[in-house]
Amino acid sequence: MVNERLDCEHHLNMAIQAATTPPCPPQLARALDYAVFPGGARVRPKLCLAAAMANGDGDPRLGMAAAIAIEMLHCASLVHDDLPCFDDATARRGKPSVHSAFGERIAVLTGDTLIVSALQQLAVCGFHTKDPKRLATVSQIITAGVGAPQGICAGQAWECEPSIDTATYHQCKTGALFVAATCAGAAAAGQDHLPWAMLGSAIGQAYQVADDIQDCVGVSAQMGKPSGRDAVLGRPNAVHELGLEGAIKLLNQLLNEGIASIPDCTGKALLVSLVEKQSERFFPTGFARCAA
Amino acid sequence: MVNERLDCEHHLNMAIQAATTPPCPPQLARALDYAVFPGGARVRPKLCLAAAMANGDGDPRLGMAAAIAIEMLHCASLVHDDLPCFDDATARRGKPSVHSAFGERIAVLTGDTLIVSALQQLAVCGFHTKDPKRLATVSQIITAGVGAPQGICAGQAWECEPSIDTATYHQCKTGALFVAATCAGAAAAGQDHLPWAMLGSAIGQAYQVADDIQDCVGVSAQMGKPSGRDAVLGRPNAVHELGLEGAIKLLNQLLNEGIASIPDCTGKALLVSLVEKQSERFFPTGFARCAA
Repeated sequence: MVNERLDCEHHLNMAIQAATTPPCPPQLARALDYAVFPGGARVRPKLCLAAAMANGDGDPRLGMAAAIAIEMLHCASLVHDDLPCFDDATARRGKPSVHSAFGERIAVLTGDTLIVSALQQLAVCGFHTKDPKRLATVSQIITAGVGAPQGICAGQAWECEPSIDTATYHQCKTGALFVAATCAGAAAAGQDHLPWAMLGSAIGQAYQVADDIQDCVGVSAQMGKPSGRDAVLGRPNAVHELGLEGAIKLLNQLLNEGIASIPDCTGKALLVSLVEKQSERFFPTGFARCAA
Repeated sequence: MVNERLDCEHHLNMAIQAATTPPCPPQLARALDYAVFPGGARVRPKLCLAAAMANGDGDPRLGMAAAIAIEMLHCASLVHDDLPCFDDATARRGKPSVHSAFGERIAVLTGDTLIVSALQQLAVCGFHTKDPKRLATVSQIITAGVGAPQGICAGQAWECEPSIDTATYHQCKTGALFVAATCAGAAAAGQDHLPWAMLGSAIGQAYQVADDIQDCVGVSAQMGKPSGRDAVLGRPNAVHELGLEGAIKLLNQLLNEGIASIPDCTGKALLVSLVEKQSERFFPTGFARCAA
């Protein structure tokens, strides 16, 4: 029941169908579907929906629109990050990356279209809402997490600068959309979103550390993308800095901090169990979660 | 007075400043500004504002947000169209294209950021609106003009298909945002937008024909971009199909059809004069506008 309410596949599918209906050019239509399905863990939209549910889910339509917008924006960022001019990644989610399968031009347009469609999902909530300020707050949270000066685009753009502050870089590139997920979920349910930023930030940092660990110890087939890329691309990696044990310790600490930060709310126990469940996959074989 | 009310530079500037404020990465900040300023003729936002004014301009804040969103989306499309994988254009608006000046990675991110910021301009109108349905209508019109299945992204994606229907291609790639401009302007003023689609469509087609003419007879310095590209890239061009005289005749016909389609409204005479004024630059030296 709870898992069903955290499942956004149907709504994602409807959003992609709306964009890919004729007269959409056939290759763009296929690439849009390919970029979103089958998905990864859908951790961001689940976190958004869980935050909305924990706060009573006062506007389920808006909560779901926020969740799928966040996932579509995440998918857009993956497609553009994989482009030859960035990571030049040939594989993603266990299959060829979008530009490998459809060419660079369609990949650029797939990312662009996903951004537009994502924000369209939110905008059309205005046809039904009785609370336009709430919708505006949710939209503002999500666009801030994606654009500039400190969303995903800004984070990615730090890769083009001669020197990078690693914390700022990760906070923008990875953390911003996790913060948007918890904050948008709470805001969609009518709650003050600011106290929810810490949970998103901590999970975002934990996710980044988990990604660093997987990049070092992961098997490509499990990750759906090549491992060892950080060393090749000269990127900061928590395992290189702290060792594997140190990185696992940091991962546990971040998850504990995130869970401790969850504001009092009607569905707090359920949300904690969801965060614990989702974070199981952050740990490599042989290492277990160590709660506070 | 009227010209001042059609001027969106100040509001565009505020939108770009909001995106480029610290901690925005410096190169992305410079590229965002570079992609939007100095502008071209700003014909789309002027058309949007003129349509809003012709209908009484009942919500000037929404009309202006629509206008600058449309211009920012247009600028985003230029940056991505110029990329090496598409037109590989080295110059735009009389200076190096964004990827020539800042590199391909920053160009991709500049386009992405402009799309997000543009739609953010609309979303934040929800904090002030008393009519969320009107805002949703304007947002829906604009996102439809940009995304898929038949906005700019779809139009550009037709270039990747083995066969193209030229009319559909131009309608999506160029026409859709002009239709969005007139329809969004009318909708922002609280009017039914559907009767305003024809004006946008006709001006969009006229603009395309004017572009074709300039590609054939233009001097690069005047256009701000290289001429003769259609022949090089094997693209359809009205002058190749109809000859120069035929293309000029078609241009006049489209403008006459567009003007004839303008619904009755309080500011109709003013709007007609604005369309005539804006279209003067569509005609090459030695050819004059010939009204119906």
